[in-house]
Amino acid sequence: MQEDWKRAAAEAAAALAEDGMVVGLGTGSTAAWAIAALGERVRRGLRILGIPTSERSAAQARTLGIPLTGFDRHARLDLAIDGADEVEPGTLDLVKGLGGALLREKIVAAASARLVIAVDEGKLVARLGSRAPVPVEVVDFGREATAAHLAALGAEPALRRGEDGVAFRSDGGNPILDCRFGPIGDAGALETALNRIPGVIENGLFVGRAAAVAVGGAGGVRWLRRQG
Amino acid sequence: MQEDWKRAAAEAAAALAEDGMVVGLGTGSTAAWAIAALGERVRRGLRILGIPTSERSAAQARTLGIPLTGFDRHARLDLAIDGADEVEPGTLDLVKGLGGALLREKIVAAASARLVIAVDEGKLVARLGSRAPVPVEVVDFGREATAAHLAALGAEPALRRGEDGVAFRSDGGNPILDCRFGPIGDAGALETALNRIPGVIENGLFVGRAAAVAVGGAGGVRWLRRQG
Repeated sequence: MQEDWKRAAAEAAAALAEDGMVVGLGTGSTAAWAIAALGERVRRGLRILGIPTSERSAAQARTLGIPLTGFDRHARLDLAIDGADEVEPGTLDLVKGLGGALLREKIVAAASARLVIAVDEGKLVARLGSRAPVPVEVVDFGREATAAHLAALGAEPALRRGEDGVAFRSDGGNPILDCRFGPIGDAGALETALNRIPGVIENGLFVGRAAAVAVGGAGGVRWLRRQG
Repeated sequence: MQEDWKRAAAEAAAALAEDGMVVGLGTGSTAAWAIAALGERVRRGLRILGIPTSERSAAQARTLGIPLTGFDRHARLDLAIDGADEVEPGTLDLVKGLGGALLREKIVAAASARLVIAVDEGKLVARLGSRAPVPVEVVDFGREATAAHLAALGAEPALRRGEDGVAFRSDGGNPILDCRFGPIGDAGALETALNRIPGVIENGLFVGRAAAVAVGGAGGVRWLRRQG
């Protein structure tokens, strides 16, 4: 059910790709549906170049025959398609990064003319932070001091571990501290405060970045668009 | 001459270390004089633990017999002693990182009760950015897009290279973009704007961090202290 909703939203987002576009390829279960849909469109003749946000998505795209490019050849993207862990419907602000790719996802989003998000309706929340922790990618050096700064902002930082108990590493090789803040009043201020902490590389708050969100649910797919 | 001034300032800063302190050890030619002075004091019985901001400074401290510790055992420092590339006398705001250690230096500074800077008087400037570029440590992924964001803030980003022409890498393994802004009006706002760019790990503006600056010059060492 949820998987069908994810898939329907992802296909609606993938339908926005047009010939000649450079397209950012997100990471996670919903983004994987979008990449699958793009692969199908490429098979039928769509001409795009993809920039993947993870090694995993790069591998999937290669398997499907989606031609890839890099920032050395294309510093700007036309469209980025990705999933999200939480979406605030009024603002389209997001929490991302439970898949561990938040840094590359945010770099790609910031370089794209348009960021389009696909989610199932279970990802909609009245306030960001209600359910999901905010993932914060940090450097190894001074990690304990960085965690103390995060705690001072009201979080409970927890080092992310894999199922094997070993500390997770991003594609960039860095650890992630999952920070439970609870419902967040001012996501923009928190995003900035997190990035001001020395030792923080990036965080999973995406404020003012999404142009549109495709939401899959029982009634099909509906679009949320940025106000104003 | 300049070397004597650096040394005199560094020794004045090193004199602030007291028994039982955890002391941050900076990086660069002036910080190396401070580490040498601390080593001499340790030889005479001073009991401190050092946290070095670079592999280079760690090696020097080990050679001199300064006992080292890490953030896993000490998440807070009592004192950090470091150099700077530019100092604004009124505010004690700094540009740092021409030695390539800005990330670890800022992490150590942020974890220290007091940051004390030692410089020769040639480092004093009316406005930060007058002479030095602001070093910005970035991730490899999307470096060209990150450089475009830096250029949009008014910089001329240049990839730092070693004398051999090969791209410099920090101890953390990341490239550095040296960004010439010219005289900077609002260093605090620029520091935040830089850290908000996805792909920027840290930058060399240290705003509101230094507690005191020892300045070595023809007339000896004078101290600048934070107003208010």
